[in-house]
Amino acid sequence: MGRRLWDKGDALHPRVLAYTVGQDHVLDLELVEEDVWGSLAHSRMLEEVGLLTAADRRAIGAGLLEVLAEHRRGSFRIAPEEEDVHTAVEGRLAERAGEPGRRLHTGRSRNDQVLVDVRLFLRRRLLDLVEAGLGVARALVDLARGHQDVVVPGFTHMRQAMPSSVGLWALGHAEGLEESLDACLDAARAADRCPLGAAAGFGVPLPLDRRRVAALLGFSRVQVNAQAAQSSRGKAEAQALFAATLLAHDLGKLAWDLILATGPEQGWFVLPPDCATGSSIMPQKRNPDVLELTRANAAVVQSHLDRVLLVAGKLPSSYHRDYQLTKEPLLRGLGLARSMAEVMELTVSGLEVDRARAEAAVLPEALATHRAMALVEGGLPFRDAYRQVGAELAAGRLEGGLDLATARAAYRTEGSPGDLRLEDAGARLDALAGAARDARAPLAAALERLEREATA
Amino acid sequence: MGRRLWDKGDALHPRVLAYTVGQDHVLDLELVEEDVWGSLAHSRMLEEVGLLTAADRRAIGAGLLEVLAEHRRGSFRIAPEEEDVHTAVEGRLAERAGEPGRRLHTGRSRNDQVLVDVRLFLRRRLLDLVEAGLGVARALVDLARGHQDVVVPGFTHMRQAMPSSVGLWALGHAEGLEESLDACLDAARAADRCPLGAAAGFGVPLPLDRRRVAALLGFSRVQVNAQAAQSSRGKAEAQALFAATLLAHDLGKLAWDLILATGPEQGWFVLPPDCATGSSIMPQKRNPDVLELTRANAAVVQSHLDRVLLVAGKLPSSYHRDYQLTKEPLLRGLGLARSMAEVMELTVSGLEVDRARAEAAVLPEALATHRAMALVEGGLPFRDAYRQVGAELAAGRLEGGLDLATARAAYRTEGSPGDLRLEDAGARLDALAGAARDARAPLAAALERLEREATA
Amino acid sequence: MGRRLWDKGDALHPRVLAYTVGQDHVLDLELVEEDVWGSLAHSRMLEEVGLLTAADRRAIGAGLLEVLAEHRRGSFRIAPEEEDVHTAVEGRLAERAGEPGRRLHTGRSRNDQVLVDVRLFLRRRLLDLVEAGLGVARALVDLARGHQDVVVPGFTHMRQAMPSSVGLWALGHAEGLEESLDACLDAARAADRCPLGAAAGFGVPLPLDRRRVAALLGFSRVQVNAQAAQSSRGKAEAQALFAATLLAHDLGKLAWDLILATGPEQGWFVLPPDCATGSSIMPQKRNPDVLELTRANAAVVQSHLDRVLLVAGKLPSSYHRDYQLTKEPLLRGLGLARSMAEVMELTVSGLEVDRARAEAAVLPEALATHRAMALVEGGLPFRDAYRQVGAELAAGRLEGGLDLATARAAYRTEGSPGDLRLEDAGARLDALAGAARDARAPLAAALERLEREATA
Amino acid sequence: MGRRLWDKGDALHPRVLAYTVGQDHVLDLELVEEDVWGSLAHSRMLEEVGLLTAADRRAIGAGLLEVLAEHRRGSFRIAPEEEDVHTAVEGRLAERAGEPGRRLHTGRSRNDQVLVDVRLFLRRRLLDLVEAGLGVARALVDLARGHQDVVVPGFTHMRQAMPSSVGLWALGHAEGLEESLDACLDAARAADRCPLGAAAGFGVPLPLDRRRVAALLGFSRVQVNAQAAQSSRGKAEAQALFAATLLAHDLGKLAWDLILATGPEQGWFVLPPDCATGSSIMPQKRNPDVLELTRANAAVVQSHLDRVLLVAGKLPSSYHRDYQLTKEPLLRGLGLARSMAEVMELTVSGLEVDRARAEAAVLPEALATHRAMALVEGGLPFRDAYRQVGAELAAGRLEGGLDLATARAAYRTEGSPGDLRLEDAGARLDALAGAARDARAPLAAALERLEREATA
Repeated sequence: MGRRLWDKGDALHPRVLAYTVGQDHVLDLELVEEDVWGSLAHSRMLEEVGLLTAADRRAIGAGLLEVLAEHRRGSFRIAPEEEDVHTAVEGRLAERAGEPGRRLHTGRSRNDQVLVDVRLFLRRRLLDLVEAGLGVARALVDLARGHQDVVVPGFTHMRQAMPSSVGLWALGHAEGLEESLDACLDAARAADRCPLGAAAGFGVPLPLDRRRVAALLGFSRVQVNAQAAQSSRGKAEAQALFAATLLAHDLGKLAWDLILATGPEQGWFVLPPDCATGSSIMPQKRNPDVLELTRANAAVVQSHLDRVLLVAGKLPSSYHRDYQLTKEPLLRGLGLARSMAEVMELTVSGLEVDRARAEAAVLPEALATHRAMALVEGGLPFRDAYRQVGAELAAGRLEGGLDLATARAAYRTEGSPGDLRLEDAGARLDALAGAARDARAPLAAALERLEREATA
Repeated sequence: MGRRLWDKGDALHPRVLAYTVGQDHVLDLELVEEDVWGSLAHSRMLEEVGLLTAADRRAIGAGLLEVLAEHRRGSFRIAPEEEDVHTAVEGRLAERAGEPGRRLHTGRSRNDQVLVDVRLFLRRRLLDLVEAGLGVARALVDLARGHQDVVVPGFTHMRQAMPSSVGLWALGHAEGLEESLDACLDAARAADRCPLGAAAGFGVPLPLDRRRVAALLGFSRVQVNAQAAQSSRGKAEAQALFAATLLAHDLGKLAWDLILATGPEQGWFVLPPDCATGSSIMPQKRNPDVLELTRANAAVVQSHLDRVLLVAGKLPSSYHRDYQLTKEPLLRGLGLARSMAEVMELTVSGLEVDRARAEAAVLPEALATHRAMALVEGGLPFRDAYRQVGAELAAGRLEGGLDLATARAAYRTEGSPGDLRLEDAGARLDALAGAARDARAPLAAALERLEREATA
Repeated sequence: MGRRLWDKGDALHPRVLAYTVGQDHVLDLELVEEDVWGSLAHSRMLEEVGLLTAADRRAIGAGLLEVLAEHRRGSFRIAPEEEDVHTAVEGRLAERAGEPGRRLHTGRSRNDQVLVDVRLFLRRRLLDLVEAGLGVARALVDLARGHQDVVVPGFTHMRQAMPSSVGLWALGHAEGLEESLDACLDAARAADRCPLGAAAGFGVPLPLDRRRVAALLGFSRVQVNAQAAQSSRGKAEAQALFAATLLAHDLGKLAWDLILATGPEQGWFVLPPDCATGSSIMPQKRNPDVLELTRANAAVVQSHLDRVLLVAGKLPSSYHRDYQLTKEPLLRGLGLARSMAEVMELTVSGLEVDRARAEAAVLPEALATHRAMALVEGGLPFRDAYRQVGAELAAGRLEGGLDLATARAAYRTEGSPGDLRLEDAGARLDALAGAARDARAPLAAALERLEREATA
Repeated sequence: MGRRLWDKGDALHPRVLAYTVGQDHVLDLELVEEDVWGSLAHSRMLEEVGLLTAADRRAIGAGLLEVLAEHRRGSFRIAPEEEDVHTAVEGRLAERAGEPGRRLHTGRSRNDQVLVDVRLFLRRRLLDLVEAGLGVARALVDLARGHQDVVVPGFTHMRQAMPSSVGLWALGHAEGLEESLDACLDAARAADRCPLGAAAGFGVPLPLDRRRVAALLGFSRVQVNAQAAQSSRGKAEAQALFAATLLAHDLGKLAWDLILATGPEQGWFVLPPDCATGSSIMPQKRNPDVLELTRANAAVVQSHLDRVLLVAGKLPSSYHRDYQLTKEPLLRGLGLARSMAEVMELTVSGLEVDRARAEAAVLPEALATHRAMALVEGGLPFRDAYRQVGAELAAGRLEGGLDLATARAAYRTEGSPGDLRLEDAGARLDALAGAARDARAPLAAALERLEREATA
């Protein structure tokens, strides 16, 4: 007997089989827990609506727990000829639970199975990503706290513009991350719609209870229309990857800044030794490979988003096999964004600040705006002050010169070097962490209960 | 005297000037209102913190209202040598208000000016987009209501799968739109952070009141860190365009479906005559150009998102001139998504349904799953039922045949042809419309007050 | 002692090591041959310019042949802590060849090593791709030859336009492939520039003979400027992937056509049984998964191109670690395009043509243009003929009706159903195959000689 | 009477008309010459095969020359309701030439008309782009010639690596450009296939002479298969834009380098004053906007390529209206790439070199590899030399120090600072210019003759 769910006895050409399975038997190992949870919830609901006996449901539950245990021991494998996690889990279940296992697929399709697996995966991984991103943001707030009064040159157009500070720079990156993490939470919320019961996109002629199965899996809403569920394939993935792309974009910018600021020309940050690599030909090199790869990985995460949009964007509504290829970019993209955050937390946490070098780097002209603003406070229209300072600079005699500490303190609009609002930043990160916990709690509780009561 | 704000007397090479200005003098005409509002709020705050006299502020207010009136009459123009809306508005103001106009730029930079203009634009246009999208969704709900029991073939893999219905199909698209419009609201909420006061990314050495200016412009929050504000350039744009891309994706899928369903092979929908075009060589053609262009425009909106991510993704933190090139894709992308929605509302509203053709198109095999489920309800394990029906089909004698109306009604899980939840769909759209109105109200009220009190 | 070439004794943080190595220890297994060839050529040149003794060079050659043999037996592995193929090969060489092995890295850097490895890989894989693409094109020509006079509806805008034929359709796809395969050959030619000797982008203070090493590796030209060589990283990759994207685009279009033409509405082609898959819930389905995945993979190949452009497009000139991430999309993208071609050759070769169904599908209106052209040949201006036929169609009485065979034959401009130029198409494919062989011959001969003379 | 070619009397909804026309009535002004040439060739061929009298053909020719003259005076306009250049030109022709003008559309479709217009446009603009790119490359060679011995730091990973020189840097960029310009020539060659006569993708039932019309338009080959011609829409565009993307990528990298090298930290190049801009708030700024926009425009050109691939990549074979949207990115993308080249030629030509600053910037450690290579030439295995120099650096006493001029000269492998091959670079650019001229000559001659003999 064939091992594929849809096997009708015709043999696929081996090359066609290899081509259609692709890497799914490897990738799907990341979805084993989700697939088991989905089946636990589905079987319990089937029992409740009278399509499965309690005994069968318990046998199924016991079998699924065995699969889960095998997976958590690291020994669960999916054979290429099984194609995907759904077939593999159901196959293992049939071996263990026998006849009852053969009743589990009642009223569902692999189409809604993979939808719910991906939706559960998304929600969990986005919340993991928020945690990882918070790690970087907090390391930046710590850096700001420790060095808030260290003046560094502030740039626009890659030219010195005004005096900045380690505090402004670090909190600036932290606030950027905060905004992207908000987007991750939005994406997790958008994914909180349970597609199970949509079957192949038309429902089934059975009295399934979709709200019950949604609740069992920790979803607060049903994705109602069966065809909407199928057509949403790729959209939830894109929303998750877009949020990850925003985060990766921030981390890439942070990495770019650090490549410059730890380099020989700027040098006001020093990379931790365990984050710097060497060259095979140049004995003197201490290279910022970890930062360069983070800059590049920002593009890689974005290319995962591109791939999902490209694949899903070609298609009319309803299910097409094309959607299979949205799985790899999702798994890889979310995983990569998390790794980027973890390694950047490590890097930022280990940065040393070379205060002397930072302050020596500030050029006198970075104080030109300060001089102009002083003239404005003295009553001159800004446009006239601007021209006067331009003339002073051209003549090499910028007046009203002042020390860096005074200059830094003078920038006192909210969110400037002289008024950083460091504690507010920390408080907002705490609130974000709380929101992430609140989003995770009902999901985690539901999944934990599914396992606990599997054989009850 | 040069007309550019930063003019110091050096002449730019004419080709360099043309290259750097690009299309901004045309594009920026879409930002005149936003720029005036930003200046009204900034001048009022300057007065309140003592950096501008009441008389100067009123003179500025009067001048800005004149600019606005000129713009609304359609006669405001930006000269290429003025470069952008900021310079053009300030230039016109200087002509009208004289000396006080020269005091307006106190404590701000074109960098935070364009940020706030874009943020205001974004918020308004995203809410417009929600309205336009709701128009399509409601037309789909109406279509579903009028034809909910018309059975059409349901497809997976572009092959007949199960019986579907006009109701399921139309509500499926409506629910997809609903999810994308949620994302538009999220993006509008994310843009509700006021960057004004960040100046060039370091604040200014003046006691500006950023919270006040935010409130005057209808923002509920300040984007605190001055560098974060600069580095967020491109991110808010990308969030808006990503939401627009999701919506465009839905509309593109809807268009794809209609290209097929109004074509000679399917034909269960008929395009309204004022939405079908002809061929220059083939006298018989009635072509679905409007649908084809919508399918293509889904890709175009996505390419606007790509452009923003590509341009912004290259850069270290702080301001770079590169960001100028995120403006065109934003303006074009949001405008295009809205046109797509408007034209699709028109098309869907005019669709005729050919019931006879729809129902004649359903092949007997589309009832195979129904047969299998009946066997399951009779007690057979699903896997066995699946094989039995496969055998019946192979032998050309699918048993238990039934009429389409019964089949449709049998699909009775929530969100299936037999249980559409049409009223819920309408209610959710009403709720979405309410949320959009709630998001717009404080913004509209604040902007209206700024104008009303400009000279008070 | 550390195993990395640049090891200076500092320990990298394990997470940083894992992050920077990424998948290179797996991916680089595809570059073992190329790396060995590069080292064989480099060592021979070093001997010729007096930087290596003949005995040392022979010892190195023997060691490298052992590595090659191990790799070809399938037992060569790269440990994660070795990072890449260069270090792994050199490490194995040091074990086998001892002291002489430690002299091999003289005058080169991993930067130019990976450049030359990738360039050799590119050239070979592009030529493989041309062969695979020719396989599909020839299967299409065979299909055309066997069924050239079978009339099928011709579409524009997805509506019947004029009579087409299996011959026109199949040769149309073949000619499209031919154009893309030309682009593959152009890309292979563009990659025929040897970067070895550029070292880290500045050459070395040693009298290396770059032209000699180029000739030994089968390159016809040197990529002269050392910095140009480094900055070209990503460009040669993008050229190869762009050519692959064009080919994948053609195959995706072919797959799209076949999804429709083997479906229930059209049905004039029948998929070979070993290329059709089933459904887990619907017993009747015979799904075109292989075609759907090919349509989707066209997008995946394109996303590999995107990734290379995204990563490389961010950077100033010279080497950056970012470039490491151009390797995976190159290897995956070229491999995927080849698999697509192989599986499509299989599918096209097995297609059956249902002539009765094809010809029955042609609607009368597809002959409207024919009628108009007949009026034109009778002297009526085309614009008038167009209006007359429009009127006839509206009245349901298109005159001058004719049988399909006559209609097909009447389309007799070159490249139309009545004048297919089938033999020309075959001859052009032969010419293309010849060009591919000519491009491969000197490369293959050089590499074969390097191995043969390694210890001579 | 309606003005559209396919008008049958039904009114399109005004919003649908505006949506489907889009910007074509503006964009198509760039295709007027091409459209006229195509019609001149088509009418002459129609005469030769007996489908048009000589008198009619001359009347058509005279009318088309009037259109051309009107266009060249700048007064030709396309009304939105005319939709596109084809209808507008034919409309103007009908006004001027009367009855004969109504015979011109015989045997062609707007589908092959736009194909041939775009193909002619492509070929000409790619050759213009080659010229513009050569301008930059030659400015770089001149810079190299004038400053070949000025030593500057050479970077890898944005850290000083080895001594480089203005000569190496400038010639490196020139050679990169050369490779991209080769790709432009390849793309122009690929576009040298005449699609006219393919009509709507099935040819026509008339004895057109496609080879003759190809020759009249300066094409060396016919794109034979009528369906291949239609399905190639987007592919030729993508090939042209990919070549433009490579060129833009090079220019973007050059701009990035110059942003850094003209900045306060490096400063060895000085921007020409007419290429530097100011700030509205900071009186001291001299900003490299032109370079920043070039860096950003590299992404914009790439996004034009993306758009073409996205739009065209969704579709089955044959014509779809979607393709209309490939026109804007083609016109804009090629035009933008050319502007980038022109402005970069201007910038590079005006660069000043600050030799003292350049040479002072070279850090001692940039000579570490030199030291290691000297040890290697003295007989030490490279791996041992590498470790010894590492130890010397750590101890702050790098031995064998030498002056920069000697160091530069020591890098003497071909293409290194000590052996630049400057004359070879110039000669290769001359050869490239010759190839571009050779590609342009037959095209220009053919088009010139078409006009000259239009009324003969």
